[in-house]
Amino acid sequence: MQNEQVRQGSQPSRRSWLYLFMVAIGTTMGVAGTLIGVAVMGKPSEAVAQEKKALKLDEGLIALDTDDGQRLLDESKAKQSYVPLSMYFTTQDNLAYCGAASACMVLNATGIERPVSPEHKPFRLFTQTNLFNPKVCEVIAPEKVRKGGMPLKTLGEVLACYPVKVEAVHASETDLPTFRKSAIEVLKSRDSYLVVNYLRKSIKQESGGHISPIAAYHEGEDRFLIMDVSRYKYPPVWVKAEGLWEAMKAVDSDSDKSRGYVIVRHAEK
Amino acid sequence: MQNEQVRQGSQPSRRSWLYLFMVAIGTTMGVAGTLIGVAVMGKPSEAVAQEKKALKLDEGLIALDTDDGQRLLDESKAKQSYVPLSMYFTTQDNLAYCGAASACMVLNATGIERPVSPEHKPFRLFTQTNLFNPKVCEVIAPEKVRKGGMPLKTLGEVLACYPVKVEAVHASETDLPTFRKSAIEVLKSRDSYLVVNYLRKSIKQESGGHISPIAAYHEGEDRFLIMDVSRYKYPPVWVKAEGLWEAMKAVDSDSDKSRGYVIVRHAEK
Repeated sequence: MQNEQVRQGSQPSRRSWLYLFMVAIGTTMGVAGTLIGVAVMGKPSEAVAQEKKALKLDEGLIALDTDDGQRLLDESKAKQSYVPLSMYFTTQDNLAYCGAASACMVLNATGIERPVSPEHKPFRLFTQTNLFNPKVCEVIAPEKVRKGGMPLKTLGEVLACYPVKVEAVHASETDLPTFRKSAIEVLKSRDSYLVVNYLRKSIKQESGGHISPIAAYHEGEDRFLIMDVSRYKYPPVWVKAEGLWEAMKAVDSDSDKSRGYVIVRHAEK
Repeated sequence: MQNEQVRQGSQPSRRSWLYLFMVAIGTTMGVAGTLIGVAVMGKPSEAVAQEKKALKLDEGLIALDTDDGQRLLDESKAKQSYVPLSMYFTTQDNLAYCGAASACMVLNATGIERPVSPEHKPFRLFTQTNLFNPKVCEVIAPEKVRKGGMPLKTLGEVLACYPVKVEAVHASETDLPTFRKSAIEVLKSRDSYLVVNYLRKSIKQESGGHISPIAAYHEGEDRFLIMDVSRYKYPPVWVKAEGLWEAMKAVDSDSDKSRGYVIVRHAEK
């Protein structure tokens, strides 16, 4: 018995190869499982080390859940988007999915036919997973968005994969009065939605490029209400139109063009 | 060689057992992987076969995004919960997580310190994953909720794992006028939230036991606004107090007690 083992050890049989192969498969799957586990759960020590308390809001911004924030909403004459968007308000699934989350909110709000959501089968809802249908994946792969988000034009192209009319405008192509006028028109209508792409640090938030829908406009204060999809960072805020416009004029290094806005309208209207 | 194989086949060596063991592990992991894949992605053919168009709303219910629904919200004098809840309105992660989703909405709305969200590290938000901290897992395991949801008392116990004051009331222990009075008081306050547990079919919805927060009350119509966390099924609806109360009186077969409501208040107030 001992001799046989020695012989097989030095000249592996087909069975021994299979055995090694299975060990390798098992080890690989074990390592993969551990890595997935760590990726999903995070290492507790790391989470504690990196955790942040709530971010402070700059004084120039008005949070929706303050007395002033609610008063502005009550007084707004251009808030048709608010209820439909808040009904589908959602948190971006990961740090780069602001565009995907904004697209889902708007598509759900429009009332167009929704895809089946695998987690809620047989029911239907746009989610940040099923948004990426084969047509959208031809525009941009979810893995790519997960790594670097999506620039303005791509957001427009993603939305245009669904039966809605889409208009994507770089801030450099127009001016604040034109944007304000278009935005108010959209926010007074039940058939259209506005999504903005802006540089956070320009409105004194933390910190990079961001995308979120706009739900309302307050004329007296000249402020827009941003439904910020990073709900782990900030509440919805009322921002001065001029501040938002400056943040939309900032150049996106991914596209080398300014940021801007997307208007989504019902296709049949 | 052939003899050896025959011999080993009838009298397996330790190495053969190891080989069989690895094959078994490999097969099990393969099957598990396939099952997980199917569970996550769904079989396309199945999804198509089972998919449902949008559910119709019974005429006795008023959707928030209709003219009447918005008018009721405008007119409501007991809607302090609406803005904070809508800021954290969320879809239940799976068909049984209505209680988990409702708990997250309320906990986020209270403004108590939030746990780090692994997907948004280092930022913080109550999610239907991190809600299940070790203390909550002692009350109920997420796997158990995933299979059968959670009854009223368990929802109360889950919420009580966080620094809030919790009052869970079975409908059988009180009456509609008492509930209505408590509910209005909660909805007029900025420091408290109301979650209801009711039988859907009793208000002519599809179909079983359900949990969702209440955001507002309209006195003239005697209706409550349910922020339905099954956003893949129904919009938020205004339901008659009496209809909701009947649905809350229905017995939950899991607990053999009636359903009811949970009031969540800031702990320090």
